[in-house]
Amino acid sequence: MSSSTQYKLHYFDGRGRGEAIRLIFAYAGQKFEDVRYSFDEWPKKKNDMPLGQIPLLETNGQQFPQSLAIARYVARQFKLTGKDDLESMKCDVIVDTMNEFNQDYYRIRFQVKDEDEKQTEKTKFVTKTVPEKVAGLEKLLKMYGNGVWAVGDNVTWADLVIYDTVENLLDMDDQVLNKFSTLKKHREAVEKLPKIAAYLANRKKTPF
Amino acid sequence: MSSSTQYKLHYFDGRGRGEAIRLIFAYAGQKFEDVRYSFDEWPKKKNDMPLGQIPLLETNGQQFPQSLAIARYVARQFKLTGKDDLESMKCDVIVDTMNEFNQDYYRIRFQVKDEDEKQTEKTKFVTKTVPEKVAGLEKLLKMYGNGVWAVGDNVTWADLVIYDTVENLLDMDDQVLNKFSTLKKHREAVEKLPKIAAYLANRKKTPF
Repeated sequence: MSSSTQYKLHYFDGRGRGEAIRLIFAYAGQKFEDVRYSFDEWPKKKNDMPLGQIPLLETNGQQFPQSLAIARYVARQFKLTGKDDLESMKCDVIVDTMNEFNQDYYRIRFQVKDEDEKQTEKTKFVTKTVPEKVAGLEKLLKMYGNGVWAVGDNVTWADLVIYDTVENLLDMDDQVLNKFSTLKKHREAVEKLPKIAAYLANRKKTPF
Repeated sequence: MSSSTQYKLHYFDGRGRGEAIRLIFAYAGQKFEDVRYSFDEWPKKKNDMPLGQIPLLETNGQQFPQSLAIARYVARQFKLTGKDDLESMKCDVIVDTMNEFNQDYYRIRFQVKDEDEKQTEKTKFVTKTVPEKVAGLEKLLKMYGNGVWAVGDNVTWADLVIYDTVENLLDMDDQVLNKFSTLKKHREAVEKLPKIAAYLANRKKTPF
């Protein structure tokens, strides 16, 4: 895909479900229009979106909601979905597994309103959900990856999605990297990628 | 992919999150080993699965969990993911939107134990979630489809996922097709596909 292709990404002024897409653009060195809405202005924009949801990508004159569908498409434009269909599936398996973390994370972070319930859910997430799912992730990485990257011998969008998801895990438990060396080692490898390092150094700080 | 490729699909003895994959195999005319576990025997098998989850596909000598990752891979082997990357994304957008229905459906159907709460949640699902999401789906179909099929001019896996998801909506509200003519028309088109008609005529009846 030529670098003149226009991409316009609509999302909140935060990392959230938009950040994995931004990381893929950053790693690919692809410019895009990064439209960010405050929670205050979002209600006025909601009806412009086919599902009333963001992230939304505008490209090729059409609108595309659904964060993972967008991320997978952008990754594919820059050859970040693995070397063949089997590797593409391996990326998808890992991404969907990380998304299970994120489903829980966003529910606890934004939907559970009662403070006691939030604390109970958070404790369960940190002490039960995370260890179980990290054990599963470690099995997947062993089957699909090369000891550094998640799938095959090269960086894929699965690595960037892991990186982004671990940021959410850190928000729940700042000791998570000390508990799981696999996550720590992987995180360090991603942060050493020059384009990602440059992006992170200049990224806007937001609370989520 | 040659028809000698071996596929072994592990899932419960029900439709659930395995049935979309079975429908894709059926439409493609591809034989596969359909391994079905009862709820009683599942605990003994759980540890054989890398994430302790099914569906799980065995192919090319490896194991692959995550239902949508499996479905997308199988669909791609049989050219059911659209004619180019943009159409593949359109399929993914629709599949992820149907999966939002399914997340709610499986939670209400299997996780909410209290009968009063289940009834309240079911009413909200039928009277609020479904109308809102169907309105969104109708916008997507208008943007991406041809008035019969969901994406472009041909059957894709998005059509089979819509079909399978509407089966869950029918389980919650047996009037759903009378309320939403788009769903009814699409369902009739899928049921007229000869391979799907043959599959449905012989499909094992299960409660979910």
